[in-house]
Amino acid sequence: MKIYLAGPEVFLPDAVAMGRRKQEICARHGLIGLFPLDNELAARAEEPLSRRIFAANTALMDQADAIIANLTPFRGPSADAGTVYELGFMLGLRRAGQNKLCLGYANIALSYRDKVRERFSLERDASGVLRDEQELEAEDFGLADNLMIIHGLELSGHALMVPAQPVADPLRDLAAFEACVAIAAGYKPQFPD
Amino acid sequence: MKIYLAGPEVFLPDAVAMGRRKQEICARHGLIGLFPLDNELAARAEEPLSRRIFAANTALMDQADAIIANLTPFRGPSADAGTVYELGFMLGLRRAGQNKLCLGYANIALSYRDKVRERFSLERDASGVLRDEQELEAEDFGLADNLMIIHGLELSGHALMVPAQPVADPLRDLAAFEACVAIAAGYKPQFPD
Repeated sequence: MKIYLAGPEVFLPDAVAMGRRKQEICARHGLIGLFPLDNELAARAEEPLSRRIFAANTALMDQADAIIANLTPFRGPSADAGTVYELGFMLGLRRAGQNKLCLGYANIALSYRDKVRERFSLERDASGVLRDEQELEAEDFGLADNLMIIHGLELSGHALMVPAQPVADPLRDLAAFEACVAIAAGYKPQFPD
Repeated sequence: MKIYLAGPEVFLPDAVAMGRRKQEICARHGLIGLFPLDNELAARAEEPLSRRIFAANTALMDQADAIIANLTPFRGPSADAGTVYELGFMLGLRRAGQNKLCLGYANIALSYRDKVRERFSLERDASGVLRDEQELEAEDFGLADNLMIIHGLELSGHALMVPAQPVADPLRDLAAFEACVAIAAGYKPQFPD
């Protein structure tokens, strides 16, 4: 089983080492991790680099049987936008009948509301809706991120994984990641669902 | 043609009025706008509200022929996470062979790098890579958001639309939205592509 390893660790200075660590964990569970930075980028130099990265990542998702998305907050209260796109894309493929297992984890276990509150000041309006300074509602369902992401994950049968205790290095800790790998290793395709 | 109207305007105090304005623009172009807040939520009270919203939005995307995603930055340098999920989901359905037209606009025309710079301090490392205080790379391709989103949009043939001039109210301005509607109205399905 091939797993697409989505997450903002590609932006770390030690991105390549992070990819290796994730792939080693996959291998220990008998699985193959596909890491975006391992792409052989098409040598068509007339294409901008960003478009070649896009095409290569999309090709990896096409061939992957699963995605494990690192949904740890990135530059704000929500997950990295590229990772969210990739999770949505894989869930779209699944919805259309492709057997893609979609798993995710976040290394900060706070609710979305509490993560917004760390960055913006929230008050309840006359109807009891929590709003920030721009009057924008903050989703208050006790979920870790936007409801589409959290419930989207449940479509393939597994909720977001979070660490039981706060972790020292949320962008690098791999305990919740390994919990996702263990689920994938025990996965028996039952499809359509 | 039915268009799923994705965007963070659902979080505005005047969300319902915003949905009406978008639907009126669609109607003027002979199209039907599906706005998430118009959902008839399933009355199964044993299901949490957030899950009923998820199911209803997913059903709207299933029936839509197109999505127009409002990718204006939301609580950070990137687009709203729920909207990004929905764009990825529709592009996944398209990738799997469903004829979904996927369009997007953003009412702030800055590059992702410049939007990160408004919120974080960026410096080039020894290799020339732009990094923030946490040493996280800031994508520097001159694109408006994460490359997966921007190039994903191009899959159905149209780049992100942005206003030619700065707009007074980025969360409510509908000029770039209407440009997307006009594209949809002139759309001749050519599929597979």
